[in-house]
Amino acid sequence: VAVLLGDWGTSSLRAWVIGPDGDVLAFRRFPLGVGALGPGEAAARFEDDVRPALEARGMPALLSGMIGSNLGWAAAGYVDCPISLDVIAKSLTSAAPGVRIVPGLRCAGLAGPDVMRGEETQLVGWLVGEPARGSGRRLVCLPGTHAKWVRMVDGRVEGFITAMTGELYALLNAHGTLRFSHGPGDAAVNDAEAFDQGLEAAGDGGALAARLFSVRGRIVAGELAPNGSAAYLSGLLIGAEVAGLHPLMGAWTDAPVDLVGDAALCAWYARAFDKRGVATRFADGEAVALAGLREIWRLAG
Amino acid sequence: VAVLLGDWGTSSLRAWVIGPDGDVLAFRRFPLGVGALGPGEAAARFEDDVRPALEARGMPALLSGMIGSNLGWAAAGYVDCPISLDVIAKSLTSAAPGVRIVPGLRCAGLAGPDVMRGEETQLVGWLVGEPARGSGRRLVCLPGTHAKWVRMVDGRVEGFITAMTGELYALLNAHGTLRFSHGPGDAAVNDAEAFDQGLEAAGDGGALAARLFSVRGRIVAGELAPNGSAAYLSGLLIGAEVAGLHPLMGAWTDAPVDLVGDAALCAWYARAFDKRGVATRFADGEAVALAGLREIWRLAG
Repeated sequence: VAVLLGDWGTSSLRAWVIGPDGDVLAFRRFPLGVGALGPGEAAARFEDDVRPALEARGMPALLSGMIGSNLGWAAAGYVDCPISLDVIAKSLTSAAPGVRIVPGLRCAGLAGPDVMRGEETQLVGWLVGEPARGSGRRLVCLPGTHAKWVRMVDGRVEGFITAMTGELYALLNAHGTLRFSHGPGDAAVNDAEAFDQGLEAAGDGGALAARLFSVRGRIVAGELAPNGSAAYLSGLLIGAEVAGLHPLMGAWTDAPVDLVGDAALCAWYARAFDKRGVATRFADGEAVALAGLREIWRLAG
Repeated sequence: VAVLLGDWGTSSLRAWVIGPDGDVLAFRRFPLGVGALGPGEAAARFEDDVRPALEARGMPALLSGMIGSNLGWAAAGYVDCPISLDVIAKSLTSAAPGVRIVPGLRCAGLAGPDVMRGEETQLVGWLVGEPARGSGRRLVCLPGTHAKWVRMVDGRVEGFITAMTGELYALLNAHGTLRFSHGPGDAAVNDAEAFDQGLEAAGDGGALAARLFSVRGRIVAGELAPNGSAAYLSGLLIGAEVAGLHPLMGAWTDAPVDLVGDAALCAWYARAFDKRGVATRFADGEAVALAGLREIWRLAG
């Protein structure tokens, strides 16, 4: 039987139709992010917009991501770490007849309880991608609006820490006084030199609120070109995240870091790790999200 | 002769008319923040709105704050630290006939060049408030959108560091995903217990982007009431600033901290310093701004 799989996050829904023999029959990205949905709107948009567009009426569906939060369709709960990822498939929540949602993960984080929702599905997909990923210690870093640092042992999630680096970058660029520092457009967002300056300014990652003001100070002093300020800010924030969190990873500090996510963003993280002498590997975030949904669907039978 | 003194910052202009014998003849706050002024608008608003409202046509005027930035009326430049504060009165910029603007200060900060504009005038006013302030080492902390940590010796500014703590608080409350954590209104913004929880979550001030996510994690786990999340966030950000910067103050770590600014905000900072065993003293920010403008006017002759 065919199935409709959806990675439904804060900013969009990516949905695939998978045929009985495992082929992808259809894919579409919908601008129906959970952040923009009204209360109770998810069910109607899914039935009235998503299913018809994919010719998937009546198909069983499996969804993961923020759609399972209290702001989404139905609260799909959390399973507690440490946890073997095959438990996820046994903990689905039914949002409507034939529509199931993947639970999030919860653990004791750096400064209180921590949660993820959506990344657990990516981890499942990442894990099945190569058998070696399921043995020994692996440190998986998933950059994004809310980056996740996940400590794994033999395919089990021991715990994780979330860093709001991407959100801080977006807020400071869009609304803060640092936005006045930017030159026209974001043309130089890929300025590696300015990014590296930011990495250095991140120091040990402490006193971030003070280091951030160096964007303004350097522009005023003529030490940073306005069209390099976005890249500098990116380097500073990613550098502070890496400098602040990597030393806290205990026995995982010896391992290479597995970066999972958007290729361009992961390349910037790889650059930050490289400056610290830490090797990285890369896996595409969208590919592992689909692989994870397929695997959870397979396990859920 | 009477004079018009103005503390013209990003969000508002506070203006006083001082009579020939030093009395305050008039005061008014104008919603003419530099952040909301169009290019070239400052001069017209000052002549057409401010002067008539204060019956101050033709009076000489002295202004300080962001009005002296490249976003304001005229760029008033910066004087470099270390600097004796009486130099400021010799470095005024003429924005128009009879209108002078106070320069900012510049120094080597934590992660590059640092600047202030407006606080230098508060420091002048603070310094003349008590003779003892002009002798020996003093660590002056001016909380606000961009908090300043100023190291002074014998009335001279040795250097300072800016922390964007207030701006991060405003951005995260207004635009970020953490705003979803808030309960109705900001009723419990003065929740001392939640503030103290935030102080503890700040730890050593490192990995701030990760610690910030604990707002969301604790709400989800039921460990923090939604109407306490703003106070918790405030405690976390102020705690991270104090934990990150105070240990960097070298010989100034032994001194009590002089807090200068808004009374309510300074009380929260005092609480954060107190938890670290650091004593504080308080001076009102608006009062020292006026005192500083008067002193600079007097010295400029």
